[in-house]
Amino acid sequence: MSQAATVTQSFFQNLKVPEGDKTYQKLLDSGLELFTEFGLRRTTMEDVATKAGVGRATAYRRFSDKDQLIQVVILRECQRELSKIEDDLRSIEGGLERVLESFVLAVTRAYGHPLLRRLMTSEPETILPMLTQRLWQMMSFFRIYLASLLDRVKKEGDIRDQSSEMLAELMLRLVQSMVLSPDGVMNPADEASVRKVAELYLRPLLSR
Amino acid sequence: MSQAATVTQSFFQNLKVPEGDKTYQKLLDSGLELFTEFGLRRTTMEDVATKAGVGRATAYRRFSDKDQLIQVVILRECQRELSKIEDDLRSIEGGLERVLESFVLAVTRAYGHPLLRRLMTSEPETILPMLTQRLWQMMSFFRIYLASLLDRVKKEGDIRDQSSEMLAELMLRLVQSMVLSPDGVMNPADEASVRKVAELYLRPLLSR
Repeated sequence: MSQAATVTQSFFQNLKVPEGDKTYQKLLDSGLELFTEFGLRRTTMEDVATKAGVGRATAYRRFSDKDQLIQVVILRECQRELSKIEDDLRSIEGGLERVLESFVLAVTRAYGHPLLRRLMTSEPETILPMLTQRLWQMMSFFRIYLASLLDRVKKEGDIRDQSSEMLAELMLRLVQSMVLSPDGVMNPADEASVRKVAELYLRPLLSR
Repeated sequence: MSQAATVTQSFFQNLKVPEGDKTYQKLLDSGLELFTEFGLRRTTMEDVATKAGVGRATAYRRFSDKDQLIQVVILRECQRELSKIEDDLRSIEGGLERVLESFVLAVTRAYGHPLLRRLMTSEPETILPMLTQRLWQMMSFFRIYLASLLDRVKKEGDIRDQSSEMLAELMLRLVQSMVLSPDGVMNPADEASVRKVAELYLRPLLSR
């Protein structure tokens, strides 16, 4: 099982995700599609159920309300993006290089994610509190995830011995800031610019 | 004239702040007080005028609308906080130490600012977009300000030669993230925690 799968599993357990439930997956797929196209506000549970080809009652047996559906859709996107990043990192030689690349991928992928783009544009009042004041849950999840990557790389002797948790949070806070406030000298839309941030500030902090 | 006064001056010029206009200052004082106590939404221009002891028409001769008043109140708070930070930094020996302390003061003062606390609690829908998607103007202002401090310290040979603009933005993005998302391993309410961030991550990046 991949790292992302292991860590997100505990989150998903809280939300009682039934493994192998095709209807559940179809509802999530439909939710993602509709939320990305029309936003959260204008999409109803009924819309999602219809698109998934099931009845309203069937949808409500899986998700107590739209908020819960939204939450699971977002968590699944996080898990998917993490899995993709893990795949991309596999081809990279050296622990330090993998950590730096994970930062570049996290910033550019998060910034470019269609659902996030959509909500930042049309529903900032919903998404901004989630990505700021109520970020702590998602932040702890990503921090634990990233810290475990840092711990492994540290054990291999590829980066300096230091608190993985703090360093992970530092990296995540930069990801957060660049995604929320893309207009600066550091530009999350430009991979070269993100890479420069990693080289200038993370490499010296990570290097032994 | 202090550094803060020089840099904010250009901002204030755009807003046509009449120097020495007592009524103008009184309106700003009343605005700050009412916004902090009741929030932005529930405070009208009329309330502000009444508190300042002037008529509605007089208030509107100074500020075209409440939004402009809010903007100037916030800018003035930024200028005041910067001046206070400048004063506090004067007693600190060594350029590197001054830069590190400026970070600690920026995080703790911004996080603890009564108006910001108030708006983050009762009007996130107004303040969050200002501190994220529309941060670029304020961010450029602070970046220019902090970069000029870094440039001076660099000239004195107290910190490593590097892009002051990028480094300033890195520091400001951490300030932003800690103010917006205080719940993490890094805690903006705890000065010792902020100082640890400065020691662990900024000192190595700044040191020659």
